[in-house]
Amino acid sequence: MEAFSDGVFAIAITLLILAVGLEQAFSEGELEQQLLDLWPAYIAYAVSFLTVGIMWANHHQIFRHFARVDRPLLLLNILLLLCVSFTPFPTRVVAEHAKNGSDREAAAVLYGLTMTLTAICFFSVWIYGSRRLLRPDADLREVDGITRSYLPGAPIYLLATLIAFVSPIASLIIFGALAIFYAISSSFFGRDPS
Amino acid sequence: MEAFSDGVFAIAITLLILAVGLEQAFSEGELEQQLLDLWPAYIAYAVSFLTVGIMWANHHQIFRHFARVDRPLLLLNILLLLCVSFTPFPTRVVAEHAKNGSDREAAAVLYGLTMTLTAICFFSVWIYGSRRLLRPDADLREVDGITRSYLPGAPIYLLATLIAFVSPIASLIIFGALAIFYAISSSFFGRDPS
Amino acid sequence: MEAFSDGVFAIAITLLILAVGLEQAFSEGELEQQLLDLWPAYIAYAVSFLTVGIMWANHHQIFRHFARVDRPLLLLNILLLLCVSFTPFPTRVVAEHAKNGSDREAAAVLYGLTMTLTAICFFSVWIYGSRRLLRPDADLREVDGITRSYLPGAPIYLLATLIAFVSPIASLIIFGALAIFYAISSSFFGRDPS
Amino acid sequence: MEAFSDGVFAIAITLLILAVGLEQAFSEGELEQQLLDLWPAYIAYAVSFLTVGIMWANHHQIFRHFARVDRPLLLLNILLLLCVSFTPFPTRVVAEHAKNGSDREAAAVLYGLTMTLTAICFFSVWIYGSRRLLRPDADLREVDGITRSYLPGAPIYLLATLIAFVSPIASLIIFGALAIFYAISSSFFGRDPS
Repeated sequence: MEAFSDGVFAIAITLLILAVGLEQAFSEGELEQQLLDLWPAYIAYAVSFLTVGIMWANHHQIFRHFARVDRPLLLLNILLLLCVSFTPFPTRVVAEHAKNGSDREAAAVLYGLTMTLTAICFFSVWIYGSRRLLRPDADLREVDGITRSYLPGAPIYLLATLIAFVSPIASLIIFGALAIFYAISSSFFGRDPS
Repeated sequence: MEAFSDGVFAIAITLLILAVGLEQAFSEGELEQQLLDLWPAYIAYAVSFLTVGIMWANHHQIFRHFARVDRPLLLLNILLLLCVSFTPFPTRVVAEHAKNGSDREAAAVLYGLTMTLTAICFFSVWIYGSRRLLRPDADLREVDGITRSYLPGAPIYLLATLIAFVSPIASLIIFGALAIFYAISSSFFGRDPS
Repeated sequence: MEAFSDGVFAIAITLLILAVGLEQAFSEGELEQQLLDLWPAYIAYAVSFLTVGIMWANHHQIFRHFARVDRPLLLLNILLLLCVSFTPFPTRVVAEHAKNGSDREAAAVLYGLTMTLTAICFFSVWIYGSRRLLRPDADLREVDGITRSYLPGAPIYLLATLIAFVSPIASLIIFGALAIFYAISSSFFGRDPS
Repeated sequence: MEAFSDGVFAIAITLLILAVGLEQAFSEGELEQQLLDLWPAYIAYAVSFLTVGIMWANHHQIFRHFARVDRPLLLLNILLLLCVSFTPFPTRVVAEHAKNGSDREAAAVLYGLTMTLTAICFFSVWIYGSRRLLRPDADLREVDGITRSYLPGAPIYLLATLIAFVSPIASLIIFGALAIFYAISSSFFGRDPS
């Protein structure tokens, strides 16, 4: 299952480049200006890449604690991958519409809902697995620590999504800040992979 | 062979997001409404993702029973992957045309034929392998159980395809219901992967 | 190296579906007729899928005979993968233009040149590896047999390419026939993978 | 981590074919001429393929020297993959605009900046890992040799990028020459993978 999950994570993360645009024709005129105008696409690409990349690292970390995989976990994992694979779509919508005042709200809500659902699936995989499939030698304090660290994920993303109805820009900035925060915190305080 | 099959499954499943659309420009106007109008695309994406995901889990399960791989199995498996890789195309056709009364029939038939062919290839891989390449220690009752559980797949999909000529909507609903049924039944009654 | 090659083969083969078209809008009008009119795309997809699939199986077979991988082999293999990755492009050009009398020649020549170059790279990987990196316990008769079986590949594809200047249709039929011939012959007379 | 990195490299390299174009419709008229006119796309594809391919081979080589992976290295590696995954975009921009005098500069600068950033990330992964995570039995002379061979990468790419402001054509030719130089030198003077 790890190989398949790794594959889906790797492909979803690489398809994010399609959100920047590999096929649309540039319109006539100054290429330089058009490339500069794509700055929201570059940021959206980097934020989603970081987010999915950290999620992949954490995915590995949690499966280390499971002694085996059963059928319900398999289904929960497929649902998680369904969300991860979906990421390039909201990324592209944000990339294209973040600069447009009237569309920014819808784009931020779509992005936020995808992230919230992904966080819920991720947490479900962890909770199910940590209740039923834990390795006999798992360090229960570490397990509790992981539960506590993943618990706020979905509520925070939901809150940032709701903020989009008041200020879409604030909402988008929070999504970016969360990616950077998770990247840095998991890098300096996370446990080394083994 | 497992690594290559895993790869093709993982890529085909991730490319399904292209059926929702990563490159087409949204037309001018309310983004929110356009995103809501894409609901058939979201459902088509989820149904195909579940279907291919379950198929991948079953693919692993059946290869566990084979002692080795021979050349004819390799060819049958390539034909199966050919069908699996094709899935994003009918998914996209359904996603785009499910709301259009006059096109719904053609879309449902294309989707159904793809699923029927895939089920036939899947069943062929299993029958060939279970007749010729079974592990000496395979539990014959389990083997019979698997044969019986896969036997109805192709006829059911063919029937649902034929229903499209009477009621395309009913046909599409059945495809969705089958994905959910297989996901739940394989999750609760399937054997744990090992 | 095998993992990376497997990955590239798996992705290139799955991207072939883009040759059928995942993003272009269908024009207004009868969807059924448009789906039927895509028949050259379905055939081109299947022929390229079979061709790349068989090539992947053979790629595994030849690396089984090598004791190790050195830097020049790595480069030759990257050149081979460069050709394999390119396959979706000519496949798509054939899919789109096979029905158009005046464009058929250019499409067939592009397809044929790609296949000829791929066959040359494949043969180079085998010849280099079988001269320098053979396992000490390799069966020399088998090695000779493989050399003899791969030798005609490039000339046959070159010949079929040249035929396109006389009859593009004949050329395209030969590409399809070659894929089926290789699939069947490797299935019934090839050595089992181990 | 190697599996995931391999996956991202393999997908990014295969997506390069999208830079040649898998979805854009050809305009009416001579297909042959249009295919010939795509020559900058074929060259851009080959140059980026070689560059990413060599980078992947070197990526394997450097991880061979690390005893383990820690969280900061994971983050540095994700940043490297972020750059590698981005490659198809500048490749496509160069492919499309290399022939257009007024756009060539912007295209070459985009390509060059991407390569410079990638080289910086690559070097950071190596420096961090070689300072902190070296295997106890690593050959320090070899480690120094690798450091010295990677050191000029980023400055050379930055220089070639700056040259684009004077002569975009010279800049593009240098990118191509660097790919060929790295391919040949790593092939003949690089250490064999193990």
